[in-house]
Amino acid sequence: MAASLYQTVIDSIVARIAAGDLLPGGMLPSETQLAQDSGVSQGTARKALMMLEQHGIVRREQGRGTFVTARTPESSLFNFFRLRPPDGHVVQPEVLDERIRQRPATPEEQRTLHGAPATVIEIRRLRSLLGRPRVIETAVLPADLFAGIERRSPLPSALYVLYQQAYGLIVLHADEAITACAAQGQDAADLRVAEGTPILQVERRAQDILGRLIERRLSLYLTADMGYMVRLD
Amino acid sequence: MAASLYQTVIDSIVARIAAGDLLPGGMLPSETQLAQDSGVSQGTARKALMMLEQHGIVRREQGRGTFVTARTPESSLFNFFRLRPPDGHVVQPEVLDERIRQRPATPEEQRTLHGAPATVIEIRRLRSLLGRPRVIETAVLPADLFAGIERRSPLPSALYVLYQQAYGLIVLHADEAITACAAQGQDAADLRVAEGTPILQVERRAQDILGRLIERRLSLYLTADMGYMVRLD
Repeated sequence: MAASLYQTVIDSIVARIAAGDLLPGGMLPSETQLAQDSGVSQGTARKALMMLEQHGIVRREQGRGTFVTARTPESSLFNFFRLRPPDGHVVQPEVLDERIRQRPATPEEQRTLHGAPATVIEIRRLRSLLGRPRVIETAVLPADLFAGIERRSPLPSALYVLYQQAYGLIVLHADEAITACAAQGQDAADLRVAEGTPILQVERRAQDILGRLIERRLSLYLTADMGYMVRLD
Repeated sequence: MAASLYQTVIDSIVARIAAGDLLPGGMLPSETQLAQDSGVSQGTARKALMMLEQHGIVRREQGRGTFVTARTPESSLFNFFRLRPPDGHVVQPEVLDERIRQRPATPEEQRTLHGAPATVIEIRRLRSLLGRPRVIETAVLPADLFAGIERRSPLPSALYVLYQQAYGLIVLHADEAITACAAQGQDAADLRVAEGTPILQVERRAQDILGRLIERRLSLYLTADMGYMVRLD
């Protein structure tokens, strides 16, 4: 079966979930119905449901049907802010400053982001934690996929919830490369530390359910007495 | 059913895998046989197998039986060295220096490590990557669980393979708190950098299949042109 066919089915289900048309806990149409609605074979519909299940988007219950998995912002790994005090409890960050602009993609961005975009949207946010500026986060998105996002400013704290609800894009995987570096220039000024202060740099590449790279993000963290939390399984 | 009963069954299966008595791909005894061998109910044997399956240690095939999952050092997330060049390829580290000693546990170690040990084993290793010292890794283990490990020096590069093969302890989860800090004193000297150079500090707590904290590890990485790689799902 052609990959593009079951991707179409996946896209339409994800879009319906994102639009709130299919709610968490709600039942999906049967394979047969889904195949008819989408004009694909039943095998293709089954394959789409299997992929959605593998990614935790739906849950199939034998003899009952297929249900949207209850996914709340709180249940997603990505929607937890990962800079935390030593006891590991979640602290909500505040956005101190947000700048959104369109600009031409760099060659590296064009080469790696989905759709080889000529134009990207850059979202730079300065965030504070427990009353102190601690995070500078720069997200870069293909402009085509996120049309009009600048008009939604101020954006919610958890961007991935917005991506899902407003654009039907579900981030499911991310690779990060973490390094220690020295704060410099505007970054040091924004974080209110001396140049040369050790800070954590996290380069993230976030993929959606279809494995498309839809966001590159560079985050700078002033860790000091807090740690960037990772769980390995 | 008592938690201790199915833990006993799990322990005995894990020990047989670790001892090489049950090989990857090999078939386990049936639930009935396992229950008889271990003197537990069939429900307890089933619960043990379910937990082993959840953790990826065994695989159950309907109508065929239960098989040891093929786990090689290469297939485990933990056995990949995670400091990598920008292209993400795996580079093997070399051990430049290894020191193993027994010492009294700190109150924090005694409070958190499995079995509230009075004595711990500390393994400090200086490792190089691509011809340059880059990592100082200090692992702290409950002395009772790792009897005689100092006599195995030099230890293999991947400690978790040793834990599994020599002690029947399978590390399956780890939590890490990552911070940026400034290299100081002996650490700076060992890494051959000036004091104050930004380095990555990773504090790991590793748990075995039963959720017991069996290792605390503090790793210092000179990241420079390399990144500490994390995958989020």
